[in-house]
Amino acid sequence: MVSQYINRYQAIFNEKLSEKLKSLQAPEKLKESMLYSIEAGGKRLRPFLMMAAFEAYSELDEKVYDPAIALEMVHTYSLVHDDLPAMDDDNYRRGQLTNHRKFDEATAILAGDALLTTAFQMIIGSANLSAEEKVFLSAELSEAAGAEGMVGGQILDLDAEDKSLTLDEINQIHLFKTGRLIRFAVRSGAYLAGATPPQLESLDEYATYLGLIFQIQDDILDIIGDEKKLGKPVGSDEKSKKSTYPGILGLDGAIKKKEELMEKAEQALKQANVKDRLLFDFVEFLGNREM
Amino acid sequence: MVSQYINRYQAIFNEKLSEKLKSLQAPEKLKESMLYSIEAGGKRLRPFLMMAAFEAYSELDEKVYDPAIALEMVHTYSLVHDDLPAMDDDNYRRGQLTNHRKFDEATAILAGDALLTTAFQMIIGSANLSAEEKVFLSAELSEAAGAEGMVGGQILDLDAEDKSLTLDEINQIHLFKTGRLIRFAVRSGAYLAGATPPQLESLDEYATYLGLIFQIQDDILDIIGDEKKLGKPVGSDEKSKKSTYPGILGLDGAIKKKEELMEKAEQALKQANVKDRLLFDFVEFLGNREM
Repeated sequence: MVSQYINRYQAIFNEKLSEKLKSLQAPEKLKESMLYSIEAGGKRLRPFLMMAAFEAYSELDEKVYDPAIALEMVHTYSLVHDDLPAMDDDNYRRGQLTNHRKFDEATAILAGDALLTTAFQMIIGSANLSAEEKVFLSAELSEAAGAEGMVGGQILDLDAEDKSLTLDEINQIHLFKTGRLIRFAVRSGAYLAGATPPQLESLDEYATYLGLIFQIQDDILDIIGDEKKLGKPVGSDEKSKKSTYPGILGLDGAIKKKEELMEKAEQALKQANVKDRLLFDFVEFLGNREM
Repeated sequence: MVSQYINRYQAIFNEKLSEKLKSLQAPEKLKESMLYSIEAGGKRLRPFLMMAAFEAYSELDEKVYDPAIALEMVHTYSLVHDDLPAMDDDNYRRGQLTNHRKFDEATAILAGDALLTTAFQMIIGSANLSAEEKVFLSAELSEAAGAEGMVGGQILDLDAEDKSLTLDEINQIHLFKTGRLIRFAVRSGAYLAGATPPQLESLDEYATYLGLIFQIQDDILDIIGDEKKLGKPVGSDEKSKKSTYPGILGLDGAIKKKEELMEKAEQALKQANVKDRLLFDFVEFLGNREM
């Protein structure tokens, strides 16, 4: 079960993550701001997905931690920048002030920049990876996170505000904005554990569906979710006139679409010869999550 | 002579730089914004310093270009973010609108993020570098550019606004904010050309002085520079009450300090067994530049 898996590793992962940041020889204020957003919590979905993909092919090994930490840093930097007044202009995230509200805008911009840069430092400077592994992971991370991936998706998303999108356009945004980093999580975990190229290809397909499932459920929860469980108000998509899956397909259509994709994700995963059920459970976990 | 060197390579370097950006599979608006700041010009000081350091030990080789391009991308991203309203709030740079004024703030933030990420992609994805070279260069770049380097220096600089600093404090800021990236330029060029560890150590010293010389001359030009040659108004440091070398040492004291450092830079360089005068000429070029 995914939630048990998360419970098992949450403390150890969080400790390693904070430790890495604290050990930076950097100005205190910058570290404080980086740590503030890193320690704000969150499910650590991406790193745990990477670890689970590793465990799908091999016993868990110390070498997965540095890339998993790097990935969480990239994800956190993207949230810090997304929350800025020029972007989503959010005052709260996960029940606490956003970085630029707690500190100031300049500090938040720089903390984001530093988290992104430190992510590469984590992989490249890791004591547990070979030169080839470092090159593979950094190449994939830079593609997944940059203009050809997450940042590209973010600009498409900003451009789409107040426009009504087609299903293809909305897929395109989410494949870039959240999908590429989720694919990186799955691919790199499996790669490090020795998955073969055909297995990696099946996992790419699995992860692509997983990213879309995640997003559709996000849209669904914004309509029928429980504010208490979510820790944020629902109905914000409708208020901001954001194009969503339920907006295009209707609520029932979106649920049906999600279920189709869950089916497809499981089919793809069957081709990947994984050694246990954990990655299957992630489909269920993300597709039916309530928060 | 440095200016002849720059003239010789400017066109070829700029073409390679633009080509790399244009080849990204990314949304057009994002690429346009990245290219806008990249093609805004500038002396390309850092890449040429890297190339000169390479030529100090070996014939110029194709392999130096990708790291040199990466370095210019990192430098450009830092300018785009520094110009933002939350930071220096500049409307013009090099005689044209700053990125956020030409596009908008969100686009400028994302263009900066994408340039930083693409820089790592350039090194890691280079067809001309070995895995070991990629690891060396990415490790050094992430240290030089991140919390322990340039971004760290930027936060110290922002914190120093309206405070009067000691000479040590001002040195500290500039060693991080501009010095680390200049040191990266010199070190990585020489490393790629096969310089030995003791030679690299002498070059570290040389580059550290070079960064300070660059900054002191910047401060001096803000007092006695020619606005036409500089392409920007002088006197801005006094207006903004920024702590500067002339502010602490007096104008004559700052000039004397600069000349001492130029002498020291040349002494350090003599230990580095370089094969021509080019890196010596950089001391002169930066120390006595009028723009």
